[in-house]
Amino acid sequence: MPSRPTPVIVREVGLRDGLQSIAKVLPTERKIEWIADAHAAGQREIEVGSFVPARLLPQLADTAELVAFAKTLPGLSVSVLVPNLTGALRAIDAQADLMLVPLSASHAHSLANLRKTPDEVVAEVARIRAARDAAGSKTLIESGIGTAFGCTLQGEVAPAEVLRCMQALLDAGADRVSIADTVGYAGPSAVRDLFEQARAIAGDRFWCGHFHDTRGLALANVCAALETGVARFDASLAGIGGCPHAPGASGNATSEDLAFLLAGMGCSTGIDVARLLVLRTKVAGWLAGETLHGALWRAGLPKTFNPSTTAATAA
Amino acid sequence: MPSRPTPVIVREVGLRDGLQSIAKVLPTERKIEWIADAHAAGQREIEVGSFVPARLLPQLADTAELVAFAKTLPGLSVSVLVPNLTGALRAIDAQADLMLVPLSASHAHSLANLRKTPDEVVAEVARIRAARDAAGSKTLIESGIGTAFGCTLQGEVAPAEVLRCMQALLDAGADRVSIADTVGYAGPSAVRDLFEQARAIAGDRFWCGHFHDTRGLALANVCAALETGVARFDASLAGIGGCPHAPGASGNATSEDLAFLLAGMGCSTGIDVARLLVLRTKVAGWLAGETLHGALWRAGLPKTFNPSTTAATAA
Repeated sequence: MPSRPTPVIVREVGLRDGLQSIAKVLPTERKIEWIADAHAAGQREIEVGSFVPARLLPQLADTAELVAFAKTLPGLSVSVLVPNLTGALRAIDAQADLMLVPLSASHAHSLANLRKTPDEVVAEVARIRAARDAAGSKTLIESGIGTAFGCTLQGEVAPAEVLRCMQALLDAGADRVSIADTVGYAGPSAVRDLFEQARAIAGDRFWCGHFHDTRGLALANVCAALETGVARFDASLAGIGGCPHAPGASGNATSEDLAFLLAGMGCSTGIDVARLLVLRTKVAGWLAGETLHGALWRAGLPKTFNPSTTAATAA
Repeated sequence: MPSRPTPVIVREVGLRDGLQSIAKVLPTERKIEWIADAHAAGQREIEVGSFVPARLLPQLADTAELVAFAKTLPGLSVSVLVPNLTGALRAIDAQADLMLVPLSASHAHSLANLRKTPDEVVAEVARIRAARDAAGSKTLIESGIGTAFGCTLQGEVAPAEVLRCMQALLDAGADRVSIADTVGYAGPSAVRDLFEQARAIAGDRFWCGHFHDTRGLALANVCAALETGVARFDASLAGIGGCPHAPGASGNATSEDLAFLLAGMGCSTGIDVARLLVLRTKVAGWLAGETLHGALWRAGLPKTFNPSTTAATAA
C-alpha cells in the first residue's frame, strides 16, 4: 500500500460550479463573506467564479470583483474558470493565480456545453498560452478534462480519448491538467485506472480530481485517487453544483465531508472542519430553498475528532 | 495493490436495522413482498428481523413468520438478530440459518443498549453456543462488535478492546465475528487498520463489515475494508436504519448504492441493481414520510452501466 499524500488540498469550487447551477444570484458582499470565512477556516485554494458573458451566467457576473478581493487574502490561490480566450484575457487582466479551461472528452457533451470539439478547445488553450506569455502574466493555465468517465449524452467515453486530450493539452501549453467526472459515472476502480495512466503522462502537472456525487461515490472516488498520488480535489460547500448540459448531474463532492474524510486519514488539509461547518450553516441560510447535500452537518463532528491532525498546515 | 475479493455479498439488513428505527409498523405481507423481491433481485443474505420481546420492538414482532417465509426461497441465507439466549432459542426453533448476537465494545453503549457489559455478552454467547449444540441445530452464531470505532456516549473505543472482545467471542464459540461502526465515526484508514488486525485474529471467521453512513463515509469505508479481504457488508435499502441509544446515528450503508459501487469495481454481487431500484421505489412508497437516504435512485443508473458484471452469480 503506497503511503498517502499529505498535505491534500480541498479546492473550493462552490462559488463557481455550485452557484452557476443555482438560479438565485448571491449578492457580491455575501460571496466576499464566504471567501473570507473559507480562508479563515483554512482553505487556501478557491475558484471564485467564471469569466463568461454576464448574460449567460448572471450569478457569476461579479467575478472580477471577487478575484480582486480574494487576492488580498494572504496565501490564497485564486482561480477562475474561463471558457475561451476572451475569458482568459479577463483572468490575466484580473491577475488570477490560475485559470481553468474546461474541455469535455465526450464530443457530444463538448458540442452541447462548449460549442467546440475537444480539439478546438486544445487549439484555444494554445492561443491562451500564447496570450498569457505575451502578456508576461503569471496566471497558470489548467485544463480540466470533463466527462472523463462517461457522459449522459454520448454514453461511453474511451479512457484512451481522455489521455489523448490530456497529452494534447500539455503539448498546447497547459501548465496543469485535471480530470473531472462531470456526471457522476465514475467508480473507484475506473478512477484508479485512469488516474494512474494520467499520472504516467502528466506527472506532477496532473493537478486535480473533480468528482460529482451524483450517485454517491464522490468520496470513495477521492480515496481511490489518493492512492495514485493525486493530492488536490475540487469540492463545494454543502455539495452544491451540477452541469446544465448533463441531465441528472448534481452536487460536487461536499467540501466539509471531504475535509472530514481526509482528517481521518491523517491527511493535512489545513482546514478547521468545525469552522467550515459554521460557514456551511451560514451559506445554507443564504441559499434557503435550494437543494443542499452532505452528511457531516447533520450529525456533527465525532466526539473523538482530533482537529490537530487537519489544521497542521493552516496559517 | 491486492486483488479484490469477488464475489462480494451485500447482506440486506433493512428489515431489521432499518425498520427497528422507524416507528411505523410495516405489515407482514409487505415485508414478505420485500423479502421476495429482494431475493428476485439477486440478494442471497437477508436479516429479516429480531427475536426480541414484541413490547420492545413491535415493528419486528412478526420475525418468526418472516423466517418461515424466507426459508422457502431457494439459496437464501436467512438471519435474525438475537440479544440473548431467549432470543437464540427462538432463532434455533425457527431454524434461522444464522443468528447475530450484538456486542458493544463501548462499555457505556453496551450498558445503555444491551444492559450488559461486553464480557457478560461473551458469557451469553457461550450459553447460546451450548444451547445450539445441545439442540443439534445448524444455526450459525455470528457476533457483531458494535461501536468499534468510537461511541457517542463514551467517546474513544480502543482497537485493542475491540480485538480482545473478538478473541473472547471466538473462544466462547461464536462461529463468525463482525465489526460495526454503529455511530458513523469510522474513516477508511481506521477501517483498514482494524480490519487487518481482525482478519489476523479471526481469518475467514471475520464475516462482515457494518457501516453507518452518518457522516457520509460508509461507501469509502467499504472500499477500505475490501482491500483487507472482507467480502460481506451489511446494508439497508434506501439507507434506513440507526440506533436508538446512539444519538445522531442514522442510516446504514445504502444497499442499492453499495451494489452499484461494487458492480463498478468488478465485484460480483449477484444483484440486479435496476431491479433493486424498483424495489426501493416500492418500499419508499410504503415508508412515505420517513427519512430515506441514498443517491443512485435520484440519478438512475449510468447510460454505460453493464449489468452483466453484477448479476453473474444470481440464480
